[in-house]
Amino acid sequence: MSERLQDALLSIEGEAREAEDWGRVATYIPELARVPLKQFGIAVATAEGELFSAGEADTGFSIQSVSKVFALALALGRAGDQLWTRVGREPSGSAFNSIVQLEYERGIPRNPFINAGAIVTTDEILAGRQPKVALAELLGFVRAAVGDDSIFINDAVAASERAHGHRNFALANFLYACGNLKNPPDLTLGTYFHQCAIEMSVKQLALAGRFLVAAPGMPRLVSRARMRRICAIMMTCGHYDASGDFAFHVGLPGKSGVGGGILAIVPGQASVAVWSPGLNANGNSKLGTEAMERLARAMDWTVF
Amino acid sequence: MSERLQDALLSIEGEAREAEDWGRVATYIPELARVPLKQFGIAVATAEGELFSAGEADTGFSIQSVSKVFALALALGRAGDQLWTRVGREPSGSAFNSIVQLEYERGIPRNPFINAGAIVTTDEILAGRQPKVALAELLGFVRAAVGDDSIFINDAVAASERAHGHRNFALANFLYACGNLKNPPDLTLGTYFHQCAIEMSVKQLALAGRFLVAAPGMPRLVSRARMRRICAIMMTCGHYDASGDFAFHVGLPGKSGVGGGILAIVPGQASVAVWSPGLNANGNSKLGTEAMERLARAMDWTVF
Amino acid sequence: MSERLQDALLSIEGEAREAEDWGRVATYIPELARVPLKQFGIAVATAEGELFSAGEADTGFSIQSVSKVFALALALGRAGDQLWTRVGREPSGSAFNSIVQLEYERGIPRNPFINAGAIVTTDEILAGRQPKVALAELLGFVRAAVGDDSIFINDAVAASERAHGHRNFALANFLYACGNLKNPPDLTLGTYFHQCAIEMSVKQLALAGRFLVAAPGMPRLVSRARMRRICAIMMTCGHYDASGDFAFHVGLPGKSGVGGGILAIVPGQASVAVWSPGLNANGNSKLGTEAMERLARAMDWTVF
Amino acid sequence: MSERLQDALLSIEGEAREAEDWGRVATYIPELARVPLKQFGIAVATAEGELFSAGEADTGFSIQSVSKVFALALALGRAGDQLWTRVGREPSGSAFNSIVQLEYERGIPRNPFINAGAIVTTDEILAGRQPKVALAELLGFVRAAVGDDSIFINDAVAASERAHGHRNFALANFLYACGNLKNPPDLTLGTYFHQCAIEMSVKQLALAGRFLVAAPGMPRLVSRARMRRICAIMMTCGHYDASGDFAFHVGLPGKSGVGGGILAIVPGQASVAVWSPGLNANGNSKLGTEAMERLARAMDWTVF
Repeated sequence: MSERLQDALLSIEGEAREAEDWGRVATYIPELARVPLKQFGIAVATAEGELFSAGEADTGFSIQSVSKVFALALALGRAGDQLWTRVGREPSGSAFNSIVQLEYERGIPRNPFINAGAIVTTDEILAGRQPKVALAELLGFVRAAVGDDSIFINDAVAASERAHGHRNFALANFLYACGNLKNPPDLTLGTYFHQCAIEMSVKQLALAGRFLVAAPGMPRLVSRARMRRICAIMMTCGHYDASGDFAFHVGLPGKSGVGGGILAIVPGQASVAVWSPGLNANGNSKLGTEAMERLARAMDWTVF
Repeated sequence: MSERLQDALLSIEGEAREAEDWGRVATYIPELARVPLKQFGIAVATAEGELFSAGEADTGFSIQSVSKVFALALALGRAGDQLWTRVGREPSGSAFNSIVQLEYERGIPRNPFINAGAIVTTDEILAGRQPKVALAELLGFVRAAVGDDSIFINDAVAASERAHGHRNFALANFLYACGNLKNPPDLTLGTYFHQCAIEMSVKQLALAGRFLVAAPGMPRLVSRARMRRICAIMMTCGHYDASGDFAFHVGLPGKSGVGGGILAIVPGQASVAVWSPGLNANGNSKLGTEAMERLARAMDWTVF
Repeated sequence: MSERLQDALLSIEGEAREAEDWGRVATYIPELARVPLKQFGIAVATAEGELFSAGEADTGFSIQSVSKVFALALALGRAGDQLWTRVGREPSGSAFNSIVQLEYERGIPRNPFINAGAIVTTDEILAGRQPKVALAELLGFVRAAVGDDSIFINDAVAASERAHGHRNFALANFLYACGNLKNPPDLTLGTYFHQCAIEMSVKQLALAGRFLVAAPGMPRLVSRARMRRICAIMMTCGHYDASGDFAFHVGLPGKSGVGGGILAIVPGQASVAVWSPGLNANGNSKLGTEAMERLARAMDWTVF
Repeated sequence: MSERLQDALLSIEGEAREAEDWGRVATYIPELARVPLKQFGIAVATAEGELFSAGEADTGFSIQSVSKVFALALALGRAGDQLWTRVGREPSGSAFNSIVQLEYERGIPRNPFINAGAIVTTDEILAGRQPKVALAELLGFVRAAVGDDSIFINDAVAASERAHGHRNFALANFLYACGNLKNPPDLTLGTYFHQCAIEMSVKQLALAGRFLVAAPGMPRLVSRARMRRICAIMMTCGHYDASGDFAFHVGLPGKSGVGGGILAIVPGQASVAVWSPGLNANGNSKLGTEAMERLARAMDWTVF
């Protein structure tokens, strides 16, 4: 498989480089707005223990909402199925930062991958502790998953998120008003903004995703049953209101971030990370999404 | 596998028989309301060409919304990707018969498995023809999938649907007002009500689902790519507003009907049908859903 | 007052004639779409028993939703306060033909002046009778209010409404599905479409409104208390989602119709009707709304 | 009129005292929750310059949302019609603290009397100044209206509002995120919480409302045209989602507060204030609303 995979990655990178439309970088915080648009990297960590890549595979980027996968795994480890009393598991049918659903469903976010749900997840991890303690635990989880202690949080990005995060403040205060936040909104949000500001390269992110590949030799951070359930949520809710489309075109569980990164899992076979900072109309990486579709087709990777 | 599978089915049937709560049969039409509650059947058609079953596996029941899978396959065969200009592929985040989403998104149903979307799919199949011509084509498709020309439509159920289908009349007229119905609402609905009234046993339904199992020897009614895409939509949208939950607990693409039937696909391995007429709060078969979860666990069947 | 009022009407008509933008006639049915745009008429029936007018004051037009005022009065006469168990009295906060609210509030329209509410009102009047019997009663009410037995229903308009009324069919079927329609949707809608097709001139409409002017000598068709309450609903709900604006700018209870007519009441003093078929973005007569504001200011007519 | 009015007030107070159900005091902040339930006061300031009252007419209470009337008048004085680019004039069709509407209409509150709209109004008054400067101006306005310099702001109530005002924090941050807040959310909210904490007795509140009674001898704080327009907004939006009902039953422009106070205007004749801290299901004073209806009927006061 190795040669075919490496060829596919190079070919996909080549196609990406020739794109006329690279999408548009997120502009809601200056730190993301100034990331150069024309970058593309892709990496695959296989069940056989190999790592393949192409393009800017060592460049760090802000993983943003991809961090919600790690936070969910950690929160489930801490709270178990109790977490599901505070957040649902259904696709939202609305934008990632919508507050409408929250009012209609009285403060219970529909799933842990929209902002409101991820704030609840982070709140569960925080659990009355100091933010830095909770963040250390989360970072420890991610570092263990990657097998690399150099993973870090970009404080400038976190500070910028806070300075421009009024919509998240709205969500957190609404959750608090509904009785679904245990810590003061400020503390939970402070933790949340830092969690989103974790930086990784696609190589690191591909390695980080291995704990969701059900195969021998992969890092075992959660039980087999939980692994599958996290993948199920990635499949139905991983791309906000374009989750159905990702399942339709790519056919793999995945999670995207506004920094342009996407993590996808090929159950039993591989963990795939792609990054290109330009987003499409749905707020997901434009070339990243296209690359995922091409790779899935080239390797005949699909869960269906 | 055969023995293990047969044991699992018998054990699951045994557990179902001892259920204290069988759910409640659908009551919106008399024909469904008078189906005896305490019935349970399950069947599995494997990629090896074998058929296993337990319980009332030969009793016919109204497949209702499970028919949307066959209608989608047929409509895609007729219209190709043009269908996606008329209906989306995203989970709805609301009830199966909600009209709210339709107004917010100006007459484009979110997916082909909620009622509004299925009415559009049927409208695409009807295409200016007489309802009986379109229904003959659909029945032909289903009979070919099962390999059984005795499959029929229950006219009494169809007539009852029409007599009590005011909410569907509301949806169809709204679609027409939005310009997203090509045939007169009455004709499209007449076809739709008959399509929902197809009757099958779980044995027949399991056989019918084989065309979505990507494996040699299975009936080949749609292309490999389309097969996967239909499964993707079943995964994200197959259980209305409990689709995320089904993916979470069962981990397989599936489609439920208000008659108490559920069809699930184990890619490359099997097609599973279960039936028990009592529904849970989400409108899906209560024991059927539980049986699917048990079978998936017993056989280690999951796409993740 | 007579001279000042006649001067005001002539001056207002003069200004209207010089308008650059006459709005756009309703196009959803051919019968309304072919009404010549540049027409304007205004009439005032005073508590003193005089009738003043300017412009095309004798030209008949389709009163459309203005008929909801008469239907409400009649339905209250038949059902009394029982009517309020089937329809609310609150502004809707959404478009005149929205179905969203109906789903959220389980089939109880927010007020009798949006389409769904008016369909319920008509259903109350129909009450198991033949549509022509109910329509005769309504026409009798209107003729008594005007004091003119020549008022008629335009059958061509009614037929056209039916042929293009899919959105109203959606509303009526939804109401029926919610148990809030007593007659078959087809019969209630047939009655409703005819009621909307009543034709009057502004002179006739101004006379028709006198029963809501609390003053001696006016036709007494409803009790004083009911008169005031109907006016209150006109004030808060009479212009769909522009009711607040009409109250703000004109300060009088009023009701508009998509045919370009508006009826407004000056409590204790006068009934005013204006007509110009071109509509503004809110679906209310553009020049009619402006004329009402000018007249209210010129005569210092306001309830505040 | 004097005697008839005084009799009416005494009779209404007598009926109120005998009420079996006094409603329930607001419990969202401790300061309001501990107000004794069984209190009732009513006062009328007439155009003739007289002041009538009955019950606890000198007891101070937290006027809460009634303050939105004064804030609106002041903001219009500062910004003129520019204010209407930031807030609408339509009834909301939803609860006083709903955030749903705000998302659907991209940060433009429907009217200045729901919380979101009042926060924008306060933001307009604040205008980059120190909160205490803005509050001094508002207090000056209210004191001038009453003709009483002893009116004050209850700091304990304001502090309590802040400590429990997470839903208002959600609204303010959402407005900021939409670009419809000029000052930092914290500053605007600080001002808003203090404004809501103004205390008055019904005698003072009735006097304060005189500037909206269009009659000679009343304090003239805004133009005649603006006075009417404020009354129009009170009529259509003054009681949140029960505004239609208040117009229907009382027939006067009014504004209620969660502290149990209601201010109503009888154009040209009187300003009426009533207070009873127990609220009905809509969040308006239970006995206060009933008293307003009785007084309007007894005095034949209605705008219709």
